[in-house]
Order: sequence, then C-alpha cells, then structure tokens
Amino acid sequence: MSVALSHAQQLSEIRSRILNLLLNDGDLVDTLLGRPLKESPADAKAHQEQAEEIAQYIPLLHAADLADLLEALPEEERLALWQLIGTDRRGRVLIEASESVWESLIEEMSDRDLLRAIEPLDIDEQVHLAKYLPRDLTGRLLTSLEPSLRSRVLEVMDFDRDRVGRIMDFNLITVRADITLGTVQRFLRRRKVIPDGTDKIFITDKNNMLLGEVTLTDILLNTPTMRVFDVMNARPTTFLINDKAEDAAGAFERYNLISAAVIDIKGKLMGRITVEEIVDLVNEESDSNIRKMGGVNPDEDVFAPVRKAVRTRWTWLAVNLCTAFVASRVIGLFEDTISQLVALATLMPIVAGIGGNTGNQTITMIVRALALHQVEPGNFSFLIGRELGVALINGLCWGGIMGGVTWAMYGNPELGGVMMLAMVLNLLLAALMGVLIPLIMTKLKRDPAVGSSVLITALTDTGGFFIFLGLATIFLLH
Amino acid sequence: MSVALSHAQQLSEIRSRILNLLLNDGDLVDTLLGRPLKESPADAKAHQEQAEEIAQYIPLLHAADLADLLEALPEEERLALWQLIGTDRRGRVLIEASESVWESLIEEMSDRDLLRAIEPLDIDEQVHLAKYLPRDLTGRLLTSLEPSLRSRVLEVMDFDRDRVGRIMDFNLITVRADITLGTVQRFLRRRKVIPDGTDKIFITDKNNMLLGEVTLTDILLNTPTMRVFDVMNARPTTFLINDKAEDAAGAFERYNLISAAVIDIKGKLMGRITVEEIVDLVNEESDSNIRKMGGVNPDEDVFAPVRKAVRTRWTWLAVNLCTAFVASRVIGLFEDTISQLVALATLMPIVAGIGGNTGNQTITMIVRALALHQVEPGNFSFLIGRELGVALINGLCWGGIMGGVTWAMYGNPELGGVMMLAMVLNLLLAALMGVLIPLIMTKLKRDPAVGSSVLITALTDTGGFFIFLGLATIFLLH
Repeated sequence: MSVALSHAQQLSEIRSRILNLLLNDGDLVDTLLGRPLKESPADAKAHQEQAEEIAQYIPLLHAADLADLLEALPEEERLALWQLIGTDRRGRVLIEASESVWESLIEEMSDRDLLRAIEPLDIDEQVHLAKYLPRDLTGRLLTSLEPSLRSRVLEVMDFDRDRVGRIMDFNLITVRADITLGTVQRFLRRRKVIPDGTDKIFITDKNNMLLGEVTLTDILLNTPTMRVFDVMNARPTTFLINDKAEDAAGAFERYNLISAAVIDIKGKLMGRITVEEIVDLVNEESDSNIRKMGGVNPDEDVFAPVRKAVRTRWTWLAVNLCTAFVASRVIGLFEDTISQLVALATLMPIVAGIGGNTGNQTITMIVRALALHQVEPGNFSFLIGRELGVALINGLCWGGIMGGVTWAMYGNPELGGVMMLAMVLNLLLAALMGVLIPLIMTKLKRDPAVGSSVLITALTDTGGFFIFLGLATIFLLH
Repeated sequence: MSVALSHAQQLSEIRSRILNLLLNDGDLVDTLLGRPLKESPADAKAHQEQAEEIAQYIPLLHAADLADLLEALPEEERLALWQLIGTDRRGRVLIEASESVWESLIEEMSDRDLLRAIEPLDIDEQVHLAKYLPRDLTGRLLTSLEPSLRSRVLEVMDFDRDRVGRIMDFNLITVRADITLGTVQRFLRRRKVIPDGTDKIFITDKNNMLLGEVTLTDILLNTPTMRVFDVMNARPTTFLINDKAEDAAGAFERYNLISAAVIDIKGKLMGRITVEEIVDLVNEESDSNIRKMGGVNPDEDVFAPVRKAVRTRWTWLAVNLCTAFVASRVIGLFEDTISQLVALATLMPIVAGIGGNTGNQTITMIVRALALHQVEPGNFSFLIGRELGVALINGLCWGGIMGGVTWAMYGNPELGGVMMLAMVLNLLLAALMGVLIPLIMTKLKRDPAVGSSVLITALTDTGGFFIFLGLATIFLLH
C-alpha cells in the first residue's frame, strides 16, 4: 500500500496525461469521434493504443475529475473525451461539471441516452439539470416521481437559483421521537445505506413537522436504551426554503455545520442542505464575483470557440465604449484650451487614472463590507468620512508630488498648482462615489459587484478630465 | 418551540441591534470604556441599561457572530464591545475573527489575560494565534505541551500559511486494526467526547503509520462483531503536510470530503483537515482574490482609522502613479502632433480605455483557468489564438463603428481610418498581454491575481496612446 504518495496527486497526474494526449494530436481526436482518416497503419495503431490508454484511465477517475477535464478542453477534444464516458456515468459527470459546458455536451445526446444518464442521479440533481433538458423530458421526469415527492420538487423548481430551495437535497433520514437509540441503530442497519454527507438524522412527527435532530455521534455515544427525545437537539439551526443560499453559506461557515434541515414556513421538513453543496456554492460565488469584477459573463467557458466568446463579451465592451465616448466628449469641450496649452493633453490621463485607482480600491472595500453585512445606517457616515479622509491625505501627498514634477518639467508653477488641485478634487470624487455607488445599487436591490468598477472608472475619467481642463481654462488662459 | 422562525435570522437581528446601539451613541461607548462623563443622571441610567442589554445578548451569540460584530465596528466601538466579552470566550472569538482585527484587540490585553484566553483553545488554534503573541508567551505555550505533540507543533509552525500543515488540526481519534467494531463503539462511549467535524476515525499501527480509515457510518451500519480491518478503507484520500492548502480545498470539493488524514512523507499520521477549515479557507481565498484584483491590501480592515488605511493603500497608488506618468510621457513625445490636430487629444482615451477593458476581460479568464489547472502546454496556443480571434473581431466591429463616428464628427476620413486601425491593434495587444502576463507570472512563481490588472492597464494605456498618436503622425501630418 502506498499511502505515502498521496492519492490526490496520482489522480492529478492521470488528468494531465489525458489532457496532453488529447491536445497534442488532432488525429487521435478524429479517431475517437469516428471520423475517417487517411493515415498509415502504424499511425492508426498508435492512435488506437492511445485511445485505449485513455479509456483505461476513465474508471480510475472520479466524476468530478472527468468534469474538470471536459472543462479544460476545446469543443472538439471535449466531445472526443465525452464519447469515452459510459452513459451510466455521464449523469454524474454532468452534475459535477459547470453549467457553461452542459449545453455543448447535452446537444450531442439522444433523448433516450439523456434519460438513461440522469436516471441514477438523486432527485435534487435531476431537478438541477432539468432546465437544460428538452421540455418533454422534464415532464417525463416529473411523472416518474411519487406524488408527495413530486409536489415538493415542483415547489422547489420555481425558486430562483440563489435560494435555499434550489441547493437543498431530498435525501435524508427521519425517525420518530419516542423510539430508543438502539432501535434507531437497528433501523439504520436494516436500511444499509446512509446518504453521503449525513452527520445527523431528523426527528419529525406524523405530519412531517420538524421536532429536532440527532447526530450520528449522539447515537454512538449514548446508551442504546435512551430515547431519541432525551438526546435530540430541539432547537437546531434550520433554514427556510426561501432563505438566501448565500446566507445559508454564511451560517454554515459561522456555526461549522455539516448538514442542516430546510423547513417551510409552517415548520414542515422539506429537505436538507449539506456542506458539500455549500463548498460548491462558495466556490461558484467566488468565481462569479471575480468574473463580474473583470467584466466577463459568469457563464463564459474559457474554451468556447471564438464566436461564442464574442457574443458573451460584447455587452461590457459596448458599455465601456459608450462611457469612453462620453469622457472623450468632455475633452472635446476643451479643445480650444488644449490647443493653447498642449501640455494639458499630456497630463490629463494622470489625473483620470489616479482617480480610477482610488475609486476601485474604495469600491472593493465597500462591496466586501456589504457582503459581510457590516454596513449599517449607523456606521455609514463613519465610512464616508474615513474614505474622504484617506482621499484628502493621498491627494495632498501625491498631488503635491505631481504638482512639483509638473512645475519642474514645464517651468510653469500655475500649471503645477492646477495639477495638484485637480488631483485632490478627483480623488475626493472617487472616494465619495466609491462609497455611494455600491450603497445605491444595494438599495435598488442590484448586485453591487456587477458594473460598479465600470461605473466608477467612467465617473473618475469624465470627472478627472472635466475638473483638470476646467481648472486650467479658469486659471491658465489669459 | 419556534423552528418556524429560523434560528439564524433571530441571531442576525440581535447582531443588528448591538451594532446600532454602539454606533448611534458615543456616550454609551465612553461608558463601556469606563471614561468619566458629564451627563445627567437620566442619561447615565439609560446608558447603563443599554450596556446591560448588550451584555445580555452576548451569551446568546456564537463566537463567530461576536467576531463579525467586532469586525464591523470602528476602533473605539470595537474596544467597547471587547470589554463586554469574558476572558473565557475571548480566545474563541479571536480565532473566528479575521487577522486584520487581531492586533487592535490583543494590544489591549495583559499577558496573563491573553494566556487565560487562549488556554481553552485547541492546539492548532493556539499555534495559529501564536505569531501575534509576544515572544515569551509563545515559548510558555510550547513548554506546556507534552513532548510528542510539541515536536509535531514545532514542525508545523515553520510552514507557510498556504500549506496543509498550517490548516490541519491535531484532534483526532485513532484505533488499531484488529479490534472489533463493538470494541470501537465501547471505546468511543468511554471517551465521551468526539471532536467536532468527525465523520471518520483513523487506523494506525504501533508506530503511528496510517493504515486506513473507518467512517462513523461504517461503525453504525456493520455488525459489532466485525473487525476494523474488514470494513476499513485502506486507500483513503490523504494529504502530505507540505501539500498546498489550495489543492487540498480542491480535493475536498471534488471528492465531497468531510475530513481527511494528513501524513508525513513516510506515511505517519500527523493530523487531519476538516471541511470547516476548508470552508474558511475558500472564503478567505475568495475575499483576498477580490481585494487583490481591486488593488487593496488583503489585511486592510474596513473600519481601521484613516492613518492605517493611508499606509496600507499607498503602494498601489504609487505604482499606478508611476505607470500613469509613463503613459503621459508617451503622449508628451507627440505634443507636436497634437498641437497640429487637437482632435487627437480628444480621441486618444477611447483607444486606451477599450484596450484596458479587453485586457482585463482576458486576464480574468486566464487567471481563473490557471487557478483551476486548466492551462497545460498543449492548450496554450489554442488560448492565445482564441483571444486574438475575439480581439480581432471586436476590433474590426467596434473600431469600424468608432472610425465611422470619427469620420462623421470631424469630416476627416483619414482620421477615422487611423482611429479604427489603432483600436484593432490595441485590442490585439491587450489580448496577447492578457494571456501572457498571468502565464509569465505563474512561471515566475508569483500570484497571477496580484497586480495583473494594474500591469495590463498600464500596457494598454501606454500602448494605446503610442499606437494611436504614432499612426496619426505617420498618416495625418503632411
């Protein structure tokens, strides 16, 4: 046995090997996709062997590894690998893959294969995939469920993606309160399987109302003759089906939960959330926040072909072009001033750039504080005051330096003074807007991470040009 | 019992109430800090009552809630709340709080109080805090440990923060392979407590070499007469003490782990990682990535006073000022050209801005693909080709539009042509650099998320000005 070489590392070597085989040889991909090739028998044999090598690795890999591999491949290579994955495993692989690649993979499958692929999945996972399925498949899926489960599923399907109802699973174990722990243990043994991520079982009454929870540890540690209600936690942390998934993630982190019950408003047990879902959620959130800040659509697939990428990115480019155009028109107003003193054209990007930098720093801090629920009406004025204070000090310091440099370079003390004053004012504008923009977006129930950065840069550019050229027009033209 | 109103929501209301009490009344803060106040007896009584109200809430809140509250308060208010938290809970609260607030809280405590506060913590948590403690306290802490544990702790303390050794805990249960499950269960019952986050126990030989693991579920589901080695998983997923913590987090997500063994290179069991640590890690990573991209120091505390904020932010401002200065000098080279055609000054920020936008989109995608290990030598040329293709199409499309607008506005078809050509070239530059910068930074073993955005903006600004003004000098001046 080789525990010394960690298992995770072996798997990662296999992943690299498959990736390199597929990426370095287009002919291998064609072979896998069953396309006729004109090649020497020796080449054909080599490709056959490589295909077999990959096929051998596949059973060794976890569905999540296969999903990662699919995501790391361009479209052709992705389909070639997909051919090698059996229908029985495809459902699980889809669930583990990110939604950006679902479309390209599902497109290739017949309805029958699709239905066979998702059959082994848990109900919550089937529901998760359902919206990417052709309409009639979703119907067939729902009719196959028993009525009580179907009604719960239908209730959950209507929820938005950001609600607890959409990340909960239906796989849980419930017992009554008046049985002994010994009976519970016999019941579990008869049941033979316990769903993954089970650290506790739930206690309900005959109407399925949640009464409490008992951890597996409680069952193991207490004497078998004790009754469930003696050891159960009657005030468990629970979530409402309509709670925000993000808040549930916060509670999992805060209270170190492994699983928790989800109830409806009347207290009826609907399902549970497990930490697995939370880890996935936190990773997705982090990923999508970073993409939002970079102005990339959260659904963009890095290996999608050019035409798709052009389509997903054009919105931000168009917005950016419009704001740049507005800033440019502001400069246009002062063409007369610039023609009298060309140095202004040289210096103006410094004023605009430093404002954008400060504005983005402030926005990053405020968006974060908002996400952590740290901003309350009470500390709002403290925040504004603090950011303005920082901006003033930085403006005086760096503005002073740049003013001095300008004076020295152009031998024009008034130009230096205008430079300094413009930098101070633009930094103050940046700080003020950096606090206000995310707060206003939150008030308007919009995600403050989306577009804040574009908006602040637009404001500090336009504002910077206006302030600097305006001051120059007032003080420098005689 | 009110399971219907979810527990998490009640706690969040209490948090808001405390925050508002402390933030709205400076006199209350002074009362709590024991400062003499000149106030009417009625006011003094009101403050006393408010202080008691807050004190009543504190036992209801989890240490993580208290930590959040402390982070959401400016320095004075933070210390006032800290006064109300008993020494016995302070250690746990510190552990839950982010490192940015440790300094201000630890400063206020005497050595004796500090030692008492950290005493109830687990060893791994004490180690975690140790580097913020005065030197002689760390020494006293270490001597209080039994020798075998001390040697393990010393080994771990030297690791960087990003290694598995620094997030592992020492709290785990081990058994021998040849005992029965019934004996295991009796052993656990005698032990009475099982560490939080335990979903499995570990099997070791007499030299503490890891042989396998058994889940609590296995113990519950199998007949008590079976032996541990019959049911144990002899090829568990394990991590080496020196593995990257980030990779461990990836494996937890991938394989849905709740806990996993950490071993040294010889296979000896050193500790374990639990999903709690992973959730914290993922959240911290996400947080610090967002801050890095926004050019904010990951240690900055949103409620730190102005002078601290100025200190933590000045580096990025200075870097930004330097790059803006370089870009400005490039414009300076063409002052002659601009003085002959002032429209150039008006149009140049559009060329620069659109390049920065595209460059940042590309960098965001590549940094993400790198973090997910999706970039291999094999797909590298695909990525470059794809980004250049997207840039070319966008350049021709948006450059064409802007070229047309320029022609229409200035009645100068040659100026329109230069505008379009400059936009195409700057977008290609942005795409190329957007792929190369993060790859080169990774090759140089630097974090590609830090500074990439500043660097690309600097390049696309400078490049945009140079390309546009250079082309204008060649084609427009007669």
